Order: sequence, then structure tokens, then C-alpha cells
Amino acid sequence: MNVSIITVGDELLIGQVVDTNSAWMGQKLNELGFPLIEILSVSDQNEAIIEALNREFEKSDIILMTGGLGPTKDDVTKKAIADFFKVDMVFHEETYERILKMFGRRNIPFLESHKHQCNMPTNAKILNNDLGTAPGMWFELDGKILVSMPGVPFEMKHLMETRVMPEMKQRYQGPPILHLTIRTCGLGESMIADKIKEIEDNLPEGVKLAYLPDIAQVRLRYSISGKPQQEMESILQDLKQRTVNILGEAIYGYGEPELEEVIGQLLIHHNKKLITCESCTGGYLSHRITAIPGSSVYFLGSFVSYAYDFKTDVLNVRKETLETYGAVSEETVKEMIQGGLSKTGADIAISISGIAGPDGGTPDKPVGTVWIAVGNQHKIVAKKYLFTKDRMRNIQYSATYALIMLREFLMDQK
Amino acid sequence: MNVSIITVGDELLIGQVVDTNSAWMGQKLNELGFPLIEILSVSDQNEAIIEALNREFEKSDIILMTGGLGPTKDDVTKKAIADFFKVDMVFHEETYERILKMFGRRNIPFLESHKHQCNMPTNAKILNNDLGTAPGMWFELDGKILVSMPGVPFEMKHLMETRVMPEMKQRYQGPPILHLTIRTCGLGESMIADKIKEIEDNLPEGVKLAYLPDIAQVRLRYSISGKPQQEMESILQDLKQRTVNILGEAIYGYGEPELEEVIGQLLIHHNKKLITCESCTGGYLSHRITAIPGSSVYFLGSFVSYAYDFKTDVLNVRKETLETYGAVSEETVKEMIQGGLSKTGADIAISISGIAGPDGGTPDKPVGTVWIAVGNQHKIVAKKYLFTKDRMRNIQYSATYALIMLREFLMDQK
Repeated sequence: MNVSIITVGDELLIGQVVDTNSAWMGQKLNELGFPLIEILSVSDQNEAIIEALNREFEKSDIILMTGGLGPTKDDVTKKAIADFFKVDMVFHEETYERILKMFGRRNIPFLESHKHQCNMPTNAKILNNDLGTAPGMWFELDGKILVSMPGVPFEMKHLMETRVMPEMKQRYQGPPILHLTIRTCGLGESMIADKIKEIEDNLPEGVKLAYLPDIAQVRLRYSISGKPQQEMESILQDLKQRTVNILGEAIYGYGEPELEEVIGQLLIHHNKKLITCESCTGGYLSHRITAIPGSSVYFLGSFVSYAYDFKTDVLNVRKETLETYGAVSEETVKEMIQGGLSKTGADIAISISGIAGPDGGTPDKPVGTVWIAVGNQHKIVAKKYLFTKDRMRNIQYSATYALIMLREFLMDQK
Repeated sequence: MNVSIITVGDELLIGQVVDTNSAWMGQKLNELGFPLIEILSVSDQNEAIIEALNREFEKSDIILMTGGLGPTKDDVTKKAIADFFKVDMVFHEETYERILKMFGRRNIPFLESHKHQCNMPTNAKILNNDLGTAPGMWFELDGKILVSMPGVPFEMKHLMETRVMPEMKQRYQGPPILHLTIRTCGLGESMIADKIKEIEDNLPEGVKLAYLPDIAQVRLRYSISGKPQQEMESILQDLKQRTVNILGEAIYGYGEPELEEVIGQLLIHHNKKLITCESCTGGYLSHRITAIPGSSVYFLGSFVSYAYDFKTDVLNVRKETLETYGAVSEETVKEMIQGGLSKTGADIAISISGIAGPDGGTPDKPVGTVWIAVGNQHKIVAKKYLFTKDRMRNIQYSATYALIMLREFLMDQK
């Protein structure tokens, strides 16, 4: 049961929109055991869509398609699908009434362009979309399936979760694939590859290993299929143990939970309240921490002290410290910790001060120089880093290394 | 001169990595006037890569390929390219020495796996990569071109900018395409489509219009080609004027600058210093503002008052206010403004307090309820919003509407 994804839209080809839908669908298909063999993005032109459908139907049994269903004129997917199946379009009364009702509830005027959205290929089975105007459509031909969904991510996800995946699951039971994702931080991809070379050179039959590097993090993913469930589980368990023996504390977790979530659990475990005192990261660290639902249990807040005066007036960093050592210095990040702790009831604080760039660098402290500290009332650990020349990457590196340092600090507390 | 992009990697198909490279390359190709006709993502398997090359070479003159060049075992692109061209691999001495030198400078141990990266198909012209170990490769056959680059975004961008695009520009001069991007905020896609229906129904020959919706923002993009430069410019100028006449203040800018950048310019123009007082957005608004280089000129910092005590102890929100009206209320966001202004020397403050979800909603204040205020010493404007049920979208909507309110506040100041 091979699957292909087709995403439709000039906005993808001219790079005004990043295709996040495919990655999400890929993840879900993978969990269900449906092999996604390729992702194809094409222009919103009739011939391009029809050619893509022809091509992918040759290779796959199921095509998931997104985009081109909006109310505006550049959305041409439906017509192309009708042409592909050689059927006409028909006005779909139910969809019309659903949109009317939805708009009535929300007090939105019904526009002529929405009427256009009610025209459907005659062979479409309509998948109601509770979150938007354009419904999904399900087509079948010669035992193959085409599903067309809106490109708006949350509408596509909603349709996938409530309609498409349940139907796929019910109809086909793919061969089971098991995955084990091991999450590491602070080591590079090559370094890890070198350390686990012996494991990788002698992978058991049917096992694949993938490296998924990110900013200061690498995920290792072992995948196995083609054997009885119990045997596969035991092989993965063995690989896990051997990997843990080698990589040790660089491993912060397994599977889905992100670093910030694992740290949240650690803070809950130690019953500690956290505060952050940011400068060059500008609130990004705090954003990462609060992206986790329930973070209010352990996170009190953040001081984003972008200006000098904010550092002195709010965080009580001494003027002499800033004048003598500069804002990007061990002394300053340490005083930021003390200020953050004393202004709130927090148990632990993180502070970050650096030169994100592109300007502000000096020969002494080039762009990418960042001081990070973690501490409590008794102890402060500070480290200096030299990251990159790119502003956004420096912000991301700083936040991730701050989390890594916090994790080490918490683990030392046991 | 058609172009195709092929991205290689199981990590794309199993959804562990979002393909941001293609959007970036698409943008650059579009600026240069090279039509990108499709993007294809395939598995890192020999046959899949070779088949993709065969297919895309049928349709395109230039193939840009990323991924599968890393030092680890799952990176198989080079071998597949060699098989496709029916050539052998050869050890590339120069690359070996470049990596040795690079590692020496950075004090990184040279690993066996890096040696593997020095094997290249014999017909490859090597494109030195100053930012990483894997070089790019340039191939030619029967007047067609294949460029293979690492999948690490900043390495790919570096190679594109310093080697690939200059060569492409020099060799081929595509037909000029002109674009006009009009940026709007606060209006939905359908609403805009309805308002500019007459323009859209009567687009001059050779003009295309695309809608690019985002959270509380829509970009309109007029594209034109196939006419003399001056005529195209005058057509776009006319379309711009007519669109401005209809959409008015919903338009905040043109071309590249993001909303937060335009607001930065407004703050500089009015010579005002900004502070933000966030709760449910957890630092995301501050992050958006500080993502802009040079924002330290007008941005003093942010109080991320996640906990009740932070609101009372640091921002001086009164306990009675929180007890009587709740943290998500007009009264609280107004007091947050006053606290933020009095604690710093800021001229203008934004405050946000809401229920991001998934928990914390009540019948009275369901998930997605957000109060936002903007104000100075003399005047505070507060509004209540009801966004969605999704945590991250609520955070994004809140930050964008806060920026929209700030823009309105600043424009009223003129």
C-alpha cells in the first residue's frame, strides 16, 4: 500500500510558503505503517496537476493531495481532478448549507466566492470540514484512492484525523514498523556516528538507522520491520541498551518529548520554579519553554532585558559591571541570575547575554559570542560560547545550550 | 530553462524534518527568473534517486538536489549519482585536505566517517563548501545540469549564493518576471478577494494574482512577464494604486519587510521606545520583535509575567484586580501596561493575557480568549479576542494582533 503526497500551489514553487503539511502527513503515515514513497509539489495549473496524478497513480495506491481548494481564483485543484476523472462539476447543496450556517454563527458575510467552493466533481465523496469552508474529497478508481484536502494546515490535520486516517486504518492494515527514537543533545552528528560505529556496522537484519540533526541536538532513529512483533521489540530494546551504554548522559529522552518538555518534567520532579533572564535571545528561550502545555506549573516568567537600563533598573545589574566588563560577560550574566532570583520567588534562573548579530561585534567579542549562566541561591555556573555569524541561528543555539546547561544543573542536584 | 528540485532523505518522508530548503531555493530561482516546475522528495535509496533523476531530467534543464551527502551511512546520494551517470567514485585529495585544515583550525578530531565524504563521482566538478565538510557537486550531460548540495540549510544557501546562482545567472538569462507583493493585516482571504473582485476579474494580459494567507495576514502577489520592462512596471504600478484605493489601511507594506519590521520603522519615525508585558504568549511577541536586526534601537525589553506573583510583584498588578476580574481581563491588561511603563522608561507598552490552552478554559472564558492592550501614559486601548482551540495558533494570533493594534495606535498618533 504505497502512498504519495501531492501538494499543489505556485506559492510552494516560488517559495512564499514552506510545505509543513507533508512532514506532518509523513509522520502520521509512518506511525500507521503506510510507506510514503514520495512527495511532489506542483504548480496550480490544470495540466501540471493532471500529470502529477497520472504519475503518482502509477506508483502508489493512495494519493493524499493538499492545496488549491480556496475561494480565490488561483485555486484550481477541483477542476483538474474532475478533468483527470473525466467527470463534470455539480453544485453541492449540503456544503452550501454548511457554509451558510457556519458563517451565520460567526457573523461573517457569505460572499459570491464561497459559492464557487460548493462546486464538486460528481464522483467525489465529500468529507465535511468543520473548521473551514472547503470540504475534503475522497475519490476511488480501480481500487486506488485519491484524497483532496485544503492546504490550510489545521483544516488538513482535522480532516486527516477525523476522516481520512480512520478510513485508511480500517481498510488496510500495513505491515507493522517499529521505531525507536533516541534524543541526544550537545554532540555533533559525526561525533555520534563515530562513537556508535560498531553498532551501526553490525545492525541486525531489517533494521535501519537514521540521524536527524538539529540545532545542538541529534535524534537517532532505529526502524525495524518484517519480523514478529516480539522479536522486533526485543531487537530494539537491545539496540537501545547498547546505545545508552555508549552515549550516556548525552541522551535526554526517547520518542516524542522535546528537550524543553523533558526539562519541565525534571523541574516538576525536583519541585523547582524557574525564571529566565534573557538578552540576545529576546524572549525566544521563554517562548520555547512556554510552548509546552502546563509549563505554568514550573515556569514563573522571563525578564527580557534588551536595553542596558532594563538590566540595571529591573534586574539590578550594577552599572559598574556593565561599564567594566560589558553586557556580554560572565559578571553580567551572573548578576542577571541574582537579580532574577531576588525579584521573584524562583528557585533557579537562567541568564543569557550575547551578540546575535549581524552588527555589534568587536575583535574581542565577535558576533556569535554568548555568555550563558544557570544558578540558584548557592551556586552559579557560567559558560562562554562562540556560535555562528547568523542572527537567528545564534538565538536558537543560545536557547538550546541554555536548556542543556539547565538540564546538567538539575541532574547535578540529585 | 526549466528547473526541478529533488530533495533526498527518508527523514523528509517520515516527517521528522520539514523541507525548508525548497522554499528558499524557490524564492531565489523566482527572483532570477528561472521557472521552478516541481519539487520532488524521495527516499535515500539508490533506485529512488536514480528514478527521480531520470524523471526530472525529462522535464527540466537544471536539477538542484539537496541531501544525502553527510558522513553517516544513510547518506547515499553520491553513489546514486555515480550510478546514474555510469561513472566510478574517486578519492578527492583537495577535499580531504580542506577538511583536515578546517578541523585543525576548530580543534575537531578527524574521523574515519569524514574520509568517506572525500569520495566523489569522477565526472563531478567540486564546489568547495566553506561551512561544512560535504562539498557541492556540479555535473553536466547533454547540455543539462545537475547540482548536488548538502541538506544542511546554511551550507546549501552558502553554496547557492557563492557558486551555483552566479554560474546560473552568467550562463542563462531567463525572461524577466516582475512581482509586486502587497502585505495586508487584519482581513481574511475571502474578504479581500471579494473587495478586489473587479481588479481580479479584469487582470491585464500576462498578469497572475496569488493570495498568500498567514496568521491574520494575507500577502497579495501580482506577477507579470512577457512584455517590455517599462510596460510591465507601469501595469504593476497601476494595479498597486487600484489595490491601495480599495484596501487602504489594511495594507501595511510592500515586498519583503515583515509586519514587525514595518512597526519598527514606525517606532523609529515617532521616536518611541517600546516595552511588552506578556502572559499567554510567553515571550513569543518579544521574540518576533527582536528577530529584526537593530530592534534594540526601539525595543527596551519584555516582562513575561507567566505566574500570578510575577504580575503582582514585578508589574504591580493589584491582587484585588486579579481576584475580582481574573488574569484574563480588561482590567488586568490595563494594569500590566501601567506597570510596564512605570518600571521602565518606555513610551508605549503592549500587554497580552489570555488562555492559550489546551487547559484552563471556563464556560465564561473558553480556551482562545485573549485580552490585548496597547497604551502610553495618556491612553490605553484594550480589546478582547476569541481565537482558536489550538495553543500554538493562539500564541501566534495573539502576537500578530498585538502588533496590528500597536500599528493602529502609532498611526493614530500622527
